[in-house]
Amino acid sequence: MELTFDQIADVTLAVYGKLVAALDPTRIVIGVSNRHVHLAAADLMTLFGLDEFTVYRQVRQPGEFAAEQRVNVHGPKASFRDVRCMGPCRAKTQVELSLTDCRALGLTAPITQSGHLDEATAVEIEGPMGTIRRPAAMVAARHIHMGPSHAEVLQLRDQDLVKVGFDGARGGVLDNFIVRIKPLWVPEIHLDVDEANALGVQQGDVGQLMRSRS
Amino acid sequence: MELTFDQIADVTLAVYGKLVAALDPTRIVIGVSNRHVHLAAADLMTLFGLDEFTVYRQVRQPGEFAAEQRVNVHGPKASFRDVRCMGPCRAKTQVELSLTDCRALGLTAPITQSGHLDEATAVEIEGPMGTIRRPAAMVAARHIHMGPSHAEVLQLRDQDLVKVGFDGARGGVLDNFIVRIKPLWVPEIHLDVDEANALGVQQGDVGQLMRSRS
Repeated sequence: MELTFDQIADVTLAVYGKLVAALDPTRIVIGVSNRHVHLAAADLMTLFGLDEFTVYRQVRQPGEFAAEQRVNVHGPKASFRDVRCMGPCRAKTQVELSLTDCRALGLTAPITQSGHLDEATAVEIEGPMGTIRRPAAMVAARHIHMGPSHAEVLQLRDQDLVKVGFDGARGGVLDNFIVRIKPLWVPEIHLDVDEANALGVQQGDVGQLMRSRS
Repeated sequence: MELTFDQIADVTLAVYGKLVAALDPTRIVIGVSNRHVHLAAADLMTLFGLDEFTVYRQVRQPGEFAAEQRVNVHGPKASFRDVRCMGPCRAKTQVELSLTDCRALGLTAPITQSGHLDEATAVEIEGPMGTIRRPAAMVAARHIHMGPSHAEVLQLRDQDLVKVGFDGARGGVLDNFIVRIKPLWVPEIHLDVDEANALGVQQGDVGQLMRSRS
């Protein structure tokens, strides 16, 4: 079995994140999310004629994966081609964008939590077998995944808001990360590409969880 | 004389920034810089056959302006068309990009202070009358402009590093803004588009200068 560079990098980063967290549970590994699409099962069928996604690569959270399937996303001003879908299917179709992406597409979208799509913006999603239009475009609010045991050590509850500090020449402290807790989730700070570039951090770097500016 | 929306917005923002600063000199108006190009006089001649830029619109710092002239910037992977030049001419040609821009162009560029181009990355710049290749691509380090009297009130010196706080759902505190002081400069916090999107701030919003995380 040959391992790709990406696979080796994933394992290395996962081990690094675990080691750091074991030493200090407030130090949490960073995951950077590029624009991507979650599809409801019915929409996957419409766009691809498939019941299930096929796995392209695993991501850090157990059971979640980048899918082989990619779609074109059309906004009023421009389109993004070959946007990666993430599996498995969700209850609602969701197009996660950065604010830079929104500007490029020519739309505005709310900054909101995953799955909270009441205010999401209508956007066209094109697959090889069809095109749909859904109120799906949103910018993911900053959040941190973790499991219940990690949360207990930090005395955090689901939906708590925390700050995170980032080191380096572009360092700083960002407010209002939503703590999200589920069984099996591993600790991970989620940033979009705008945030990662603004703070000068990359996938696999570590952030410092803090409750307040101190 | 008819005023454009942009002109009215400029005046409004300038007045707003001055009023805020008059009330509290640590509250400073934000300017967001999209990618742009400064040209040395010889390069302006090569690209446009001109001795001087023509003014498209004034910007907040006296004497500085967005020029009518625009260029295409070519990287290894992609190009940006119609990138705005800023006048007047500089000693060295400089292409100011965000990290997102760098990724799109397929190049890496140093995060550095304007004019400090020893490590800048070679890039091709195309105008209507010619094309040049210059070690000009850089990402502008965060900085704050101000005049000597404002700096004196804040007890700051040129090249001091300060932190700036930003309000809102995407708020936070960014480290390492370089204080830059020149006669006639008005107080202005400069962010690139990645930083502005990450912090959820726009041109004309106000940031809170702070010396340290407190």
